[in-house]
Amino acid sequence: MKTATEYLESMKAYNPRIFLGGKQVNLHENSTALTVLRANARVYELAEDPKYADIMTVISAYSGEKVSRNLHISSSTADLEKRSEMATLTSQMLGTCNYRCVGADVLNALAGITWEMDKELGTNYHSRLLNHLKYLQENDLAVSGGVTDAKGDRTKRPVEQEDPDVYVHVVEKREDGIVVRGAKVSQSGAIGSHETLVIPTMGMRQGEEDFAVAFAVPNGTEGLTYICQYTPFTAERELSPDVKYLGNPLYGQRETCIMVFDNVFIPWEHVFMCGETKYSGRLVARFAKTHRMNCGGACKVGFADLIIGATQLAAEYSGVQKAPHIVEKMTDMIRINETARACTIAAALKGHEEPAGSGFFQPDDIFGNAAKLTIADGFWDILKWAGDIGGGMAVTMPSELELENPETAHYVRKFMKASAPAEQRLRISKFIQNWCAGLHGAGTWHGAGSPMAQKMALYALTNFEEKKNLARSLAGLREE
Amino acid sequence: MKTATEYLESMKAYNPRIFLGGKQVNLHENSTALTVLRANARVYELAEDPKYADIMTVISAYSGEKVSRNLHISSSTADLEKRSEMATLTSQMLGTCNYRCVGADVLNALAGITWEMDKELGTNYHSRLLNHLKYLQENDLAVSGGVTDAKGDRTKRPVEQEDPDVYVHVVEKREDGIVVRGAKVSQSGAIGSHETLVIPTMGMRQGEEDFAVAFAVPNGTEGLTYICQYTPFTAERELSPDVKYLGNPLYGQRETCIMVFDNVFIPWEHVFMCGETKYSGRLVARFAKTHRMNCGGACKVGFADLIIGATQLAAEYSGVQKAPHIVEKMTDMIRINETARACTIAAALKGHEEPAGSGFFQPDDIFGNAAKLTIADGFWDILKWAGDIGGGMAVTMPSELELENPETAHYVRKFMKASAPAEQRLRISKFIQNWCAGLHGAGTWHGAGSPMAQKMALYALTNFEEKKNLARSLAGLREE
Amino acid sequence: MKTATEYLESMKAYNPRIFLGGKQVNLHENSTALTVLRANARVYELAEDPKYADIMTVISAYSGEKVSRNLHISSSTADLEKRSEMATLTSQMLGTCNYRCVGADVLNALAGITWEMDKELGTNYHSRLLNHLKYLQENDLAVSGGVTDAKGDRTKRPVEQEDPDVYVHVVEKREDGIVVRGAKVSQSGAIGSHETLVIPTMGMRQGEEDFAVAFAVPNGTEGLTYICQYTPFTAERELSPDVKYLGNPLYGQRETCIMVFDNVFIPWEHVFMCGETKYSGRLVARFAKTHRMNCGGACKVGFADLIIGATQLAAEYSGVQKAPHIVEKMTDMIRINETARACTIAAALKGHEEPAGSGFFQPDDIFGNAAKLTIADGFWDILKWAGDIGGGMAVTMPSELELENPETAHYVRKFMKASAPAEQRLRISKFIQNWCAGLHGAGTWHGAGSPMAQKMALYALTNFEEKKNLARSLAGLREE
Amino acid sequence: MKTATEYLESMKAYNPRIFLGGKQVNLHENSTALTVLRANARVYELAEDPKYADIMTVISAYSGEKVSRNLHISSSTADLEKRSEMATLTSQMLGTCNYRCVGADVLNALAGITWEMDKELGTNYHSRLLNHLKYLQENDLAVSGGVTDAKGDRTKRPVEQEDPDVYVHVVEKREDGIVVRGAKVSQSGAIGSHETLVIPTMGMRQGEEDFAVAFAVPNGTEGLTYICQYTPFTAERELSPDVKYLGNPLYGQRETCIMVFDNVFIPWEHVFMCGETKYSGRLVARFAKTHRMNCGGACKVGFADLIIGATQLAAEYSGVQKAPHIVEKMTDMIRINETARACTIAAALKGHEEPAGSGFFQPDDIFGNAAKLTIADGFWDILKWAGDIGGGMAVTMPSELELENPETAHYVRKFMKASAPAEQRLRISKFIQNWCAGLHGAGTWHGAGSPMAQKMALYALTNFEEKKNLARSLAGLREE
Repeated sequence: MKTATEYLESMKAYNPRIFLGGKQVNLHENSTALTVLRANARVYELAEDPKYADIMTVISAYSGEKVSRNLHISSSTADLEKRSEMATLTSQMLGTCNYRCVGADVLNALAGITWEMDKELGTNYHSRLLNHLKYLQENDLAVSGGVTDAKGDRTKRPVEQEDPDVYVHVVEKREDGIVVRGAKVSQSGAIGSHETLVIPTMGMRQGEEDFAVAFAVPNGTEGLTYICQYTPFTAERELSPDVKYLGNPLYGQRETCIMVFDNVFIPWEHVFMCGETKYSGRLVARFAKTHRMNCGGACKVGFADLIIGATQLAAEYSGVQKAPHIVEKMTDMIRINETARACTIAAALKGHEEPAGSGFFQPDDIFGNAAKLTIADGFWDILKWAGDIGGGMAVTMPSELELENPETAHYVRKFMKASAPAEQRLRISKFIQNWCAGLHGAGTWHGAGSPMAQKMALYALTNFEEKKNLARSLAGLREE
Repeated sequence: MKTATEYLESMKAYNPRIFLGGKQVNLHENSTALTVLRANARVYELAEDPKYADIMTVISAYSGEKVSRNLHISSSTADLEKRSEMATLTSQMLGTCNYRCVGADVLNALAGITWEMDKELGTNYHSRLLNHLKYLQENDLAVSGGVTDAKGDRTKRPVEQEDPDVYVHVVEKREDGIVVRGAKVSQSGAIGSHETLVIPTMGMRQGEEDFAVAFAVPNGTEGLTYICQYTPFTAERELSPDVKYLGNPLYGQRETCIMVFDNVFIPWEHVFMCGETKYSGRLVARFAKTHRMNCGGACKVGFADLIIGATQLAAEYSGVQKAPHIVEKMTDMIRINETARACTIAAALKGHEEPAGSGFFQPDDIFGNAAKLTIADGFWDILKWAGDIGGGMAVTMPSELELENPETAHYVRKFMKASAPAEQRLRISKFIQNWCAGLHGAGTWHGAGSPMAQKMALYALTNFEEKKNLARSLAGLREE
Repeated sequence: MKTATEYLESMKAYNPRIFLGGKQVNLHENSTALTVLRANARVYELAEDPKYADIMTVISAYSGEKVSRNLHISSSTADLEKRSEMATLTSQMLGTCNYRCVGADVLNALAGITWEMDKELGTNYHSRLLNHLKYLQENDLAVSGGVTDAKGDRTKRPVEQEDPDVYVHVVEKREDGIVVRGAKVSQSGAIGSHETLVIPTMGMRQGEEDFAVAFAVPNGTEGLTYICQYTPFTAERELSPDVKYLGNPLYGQRETCIMVFDNVFIPWEHVFMCGETKYSGRLVARFAKTHRMNCGGACKVGFADLIIGATQLAAEYSGVQKAPHIVEKMTDMIRINETARACTIAAALKGHEEPAGSGFFQPDDIFGNAAKLTIADGFWDILKWAGDIGGGMAVTMPSELELENPETAHYVRKFMKASAPAEQRLRISKFIQNWCAGLHGAGTWHGAGSPMAQKMALYALTNFEEKKNLARSLAGLREE
Repeated sequence: MKTATEYLESMKAYNPRIFLGGKQVNLHENSTALTVLRANARVYELAEDPKYADIMTVISAYSGEKVSRNLHISSSTADLEKRSEMATLTSQMLGTCNYRCVGADVLNALAGITWEMDKELGTNYHSRLLNHLKYLQENDLAVSGGVTDAKGDRTKRPVEQEDPDVYVHVVEKREDGIVVRGAKVSQSGAIGSHETLVIPTMGMRQGEEDFAVAFAVPNGTEGLTYICQYTPFTAERELSPDVKYLGNPLYGQRETCIMVFDNVFIPWEHVFMCGETKYSGRLVARFAKTHRMNCGGACKVGFADLIIGATQLAAEYSGVQKAPHIVEKMTDMIRINETARACTIAAALKGHEEPAGSGFFQPDDIFGNAAKLTIADGFWDILKWAGDIGGGMAVTMPSELELENPETAHYVRKFMKASAPAEQRLRISKFIQNWCAGLHGAGTWHGAGSPMAQKMALYALTNFEEKKNLARSLAGLREE
């Protein structure tokens, strides 16, 4: 397995075409791109730490060697639980994405679906995938995932779009591989990964064969362009003389990009679905099921642990931590977070083998959706309470740079002091600002799919007949 | 094990002193008392049903025989999960209390605490309890629990009360046993049980030894008086010519009483704590931990399954089940309920042996409290949506008796018909009325302890230092 | 104007055909029917009280005499405010319906619409209505309203129904009047009123002329049958030896009935719309606008005042009123209620003349809908907090009759005492039970129309273009 | 009255000592400082616009001339309503503070309290204030307000603080005036105002006379230093080549500073309270009362109008505006906002003369607090829905600068297009980002005082005795 240093070293071989804020930037120099490399390096570092070994690593079923859990196909409910714990741990340690998370969940979804296709259609997708997986494990590569398409006109199917490129699709099939075009949006971390696994954004129908495509693509492959998100936080980082003045100094925001595929060639050994529309919906559904537990639930539980800790510190620094209404609000943050944590645990421990006979495990779908809905809604409340207890300071604080300016330092020290010195109060307020006045409310809402998708899933998954029968039986109504 | 019929037969031996609505009533004749007997009989019946065998029964660790799970000490996380499933199942089947639930959780709490006392103090409480447990299992007795004291002046400790009887306590110690006085309020089901297990309502302190008392007492023991709750539902049942006209025809409401102990003698073999104040808080805490998972969480999940089923039926009977806002509300009911269910599952599966070495298992405390808080608050929402979809009818409907009156039957048939006939709509509306215009909102809120108690528990159980360190580490603050 | 005694005397002339619980009952003897007479009498009494003169009475624009505000057409925003204050006052005094409320709002809606019809169509509906109004004012009659039809198959229009009678409609037009058939459901208080004003349940379309009908009908007219609601509270009242043992002793529940019109003859002078479909939607919309402010908002504010008062008493009787979490919950009840009160005030004071030139005033529609939505949702929270602070006792309390039974009185006195004697605690708990374990949650939700109707109204009333332009302007987007 | 141009011209005379991001900056050159000048200029412009004349201007009671409503003492409920409408209007037009709002409300609070002091103590504060007011009106000056002190150790009173400077106070009384020291934090807009009105942060007690001080101070007076807030938005603006790429291009964020008073001399004619501790609490309470209606309520209603408009545009640009769940969410935003608007209207229209005889009007306190609480909590929901409908794009969008880079423009045009072109979608998404991923959630929460303060006010303002009597009367309990 790679060390953090080896990871960073290995990335030097890549020079993807990245744009940010209207200009081309270098992966290894741009302040925002560096947060992605740094976050990935930290994840490699955690895998080296014996304290986290059983969470971050696992023995490969294929090589018998220790590998990253980010490259593991879950094969038991215990595995599912550890996978979900990894999501919480990396969030606690990074305060942003483990950029290998989507890739890991795509891998798990592909494992089952390719197994089924090979079995039912006689294809060799699964063996290709396993070959590729061995390569990934052997080299301990960082793999991101690309799922969400641009979508264009929301009222039309892919084939009906004026410009079909708004959905990634095959534009040419060659003997040695396929050529794809389109873009994946809100893509997390591709710029800092060795490669990206791409799957469709939704189930495709007959006639949409070109859109039912899944494949792996190495970073910086010809035809790939990465257009990064640009937010106030991007600017602040660019301008800041030292990362310590920032809200999440080392790891920053969840950085995404529009990952453009402009006639990108994919050799057949990296293609894991190509035209099998019938399987595409199930592939996406399995990805969603896993990702809602991990990214939708467990990851945000880790974020909330950070926010709860920071908010408690802010309360202590102001000296108000024992006021009954502060205790009430802290308790509410805890309640929300532990409820979401419980849902992810139930999702993992009530998971089951799927597809039957494959040896691969998937979480319980109802509880995974419940986890996502609990934290999506609850996260806004958690931010509200963080902002409440963080106080006006969380949005009106001066820069910590004032402490280094002799003309203002004594004023800021004097007037920002409470039960803790100004330095500490500014530092924790900046950290809280990063959450309660930043990208995480809306980000948590939409990550792993917007809540409306989880609601539709919950409704569809409910056995109404069973519940109706229970009610009828007690009410003295005959079954119809 | 007893059949339902054998249970009912066995109860004939008991003639407790019961008052209801200002008059003494007979356990075997009073319409409300009969709902308790009927509910208990149904629980015996479920244990006979092979379909529910693994939920309702278990092999005794003491006799090797199959016994009711209501008389079982959980010895694994799987056991805890089944225990919690029993709570859901009986709620689905009864729409009211499994009146043996509190007794079962008291038994589990007593098992651990007596084991510790015997080990640490050299008492023989644990062996007494096991002897008694064997007797209960051999005779498959129904055991209720008595926990909540009258409490008098809430600002004073038991010993400071003007009238110490507001807390159950020992008034005399004799060679052959003890004499107790006081009352347990909001007591569920003692009138229909073979016996009741009594524990303190809270931890007692030095000087409050007489109040640190736990014991078993058979139904109808001399000195016992049961003063029943009286609500509009009591009256409606008394007046109704047939139970079918009622909202929960067979099993009615969760029936409670003030269980008065007027100098009741308890022989030593039925005393399981007597003066050990140091252990009393832990006893209550363990009871709470278990009971919040079962009564606080899983039981109400079963109720909510019924309400969801009934509400969906009401929507279908009105023909509105596909309207987007109806689907949204049904989904919200499901979301709440599955979230609570997930918490109970996590509470069970993340349980652990406690006390260490005892072989007895207790659920995870944080997730049990989360389960209770989720459903306590969510239940009011579930009732709101049931009332929304049930429509004005849920509170303005005429009696189903109108359908048997030739002067009104044709009118009611004509005007209460929608997508289903009037009969069905009236029946399901009455069932919904039972929930959304009845005792269950406030009952669910306070059952297994009021939410404020769970909030205090959650706050106390939280490891703030750990979370503060996570935040400090990311924010670049040194640990203090 | 009539005194309360004169009202009761005047009612003796009426002997409507009333069914309740499957049996025919006498208006002047049945315990439930008596609550309606008593409530109406109390409203007459309030009008006699100089303290409430400016709320309950007003100088008639037609006679120059003092008349009941229940028979007044609002002609200024001050009038609208007083009308809304009357709704709050009667709720505070009755804890149930002012059964003349719907009639008053129907009257106001009819005033404008008949004025328009006469002006535009040359009909004489308005002069008929004014004639009738003078008669009502001169005799100070109690007038209820009938609005909600049975509706049958919700997916079909009135003319498409298998049985057209599920909407009240004209079945015959004669020289001297019309004959109507159908039923009004969830009708409040017709049994205790001198007459009832009936309007359509919704806007009718071309081809549905027979359903576009509005008229007045005296109590007990031939062909009328009243089938009363039947709930657990009906039974409790019937069984109770004294009203003092009940939750709302004198005035009970909001009593409704199915008011059946089986070929009822209405003379032309009592017909105020007959076939003018074009005006029917506007008639209903104006009724809704007024009724949402009064019944939807102000009335429930009065109920909430009662609940807040009772809950504070319960807290004081238990001695917990100063605990921070109790103060927090009381504050939340107050916040909800004052927010709803503010909405009703804004609805009244931002009202306007409608139709222009008529001299009649209607409340602001947006704020009226906001009032209803605030209290509909908030009322469930208010009930939740009442149940929280009321404690388990609110649902597990024994009958107050136990205090009169020498065998249980001393026990109940002893064990129900806290910071106040058992009598007081039982009394206030029973009052709280009436709310938090009764019909008012669902009743408040649907009264004045279900919340979905208010939401649709709010959306339809919003000027999106204006708001879009504001946003475009600031964002630097050109208007399209 | 000044035109916008004249205002900007007049500001050139001021060169305050401003620090931002660790460096001293020039008011007339710094990109962030310019947003404050621009916002103020826009408010002057609105006063010139005949369309807004009755909202933005009023005839002075002192000069008979037209003056800005920002310099007016409300003297009727109609005045209060217009004042509150000004708050909504300026928010709609600026998307940030009217920086003269706090000053206006401080002025109103000072008017009454100085009137009382002069009457009761024989001081001449009121005549001083009126003289100063005439000067302000004649010159149409922009006046900001300074209220919130640094506060230091929250558990101690001002006199007990280690460093008394954490509360602004008098350090020297001279013949010609006073010298003050301390700081006002979270101060809005002082840098762009002609002067600032300062009052205590809370009621002072006997012994705290030096802290009971109110005065006016011109911008840039010797001893004043302004240390500005610094957020990601500050950096983004500094880096942006054109304001059009920003979320609120012209007016930016609510910019605040720590306004440091380092031995600032205030001549007596600008001192309006000095030592009268008895009046200080009432002064603050009156300010709060007015400010909660205006800043706490009406201002945020204007912001919400903008967000609702933008979100509807985003829905239309994506083509999803008719989906039922989108309509539901838009409706919820509207409901919240119209409820808050109703509260501000009720606060204004139920206002009253205070102090009696003064001719000055204050809003209703209960409804003002309800307005603030409704929008404080509701704003987080509004942001949630804006983020929901705005979609992932609201946080993952690229910079609009990409549209000007030929290497990325065609990709962004292609992939960001939906029912509207990429340009429009990016522009409205950036505007939504400004709200749902910015400073406004926490800012709205704390503006005009944190919600806990409003809750305490609501509880304190409630007449519990009246409500208890209503409940007792109905429940049949005697008054105690």
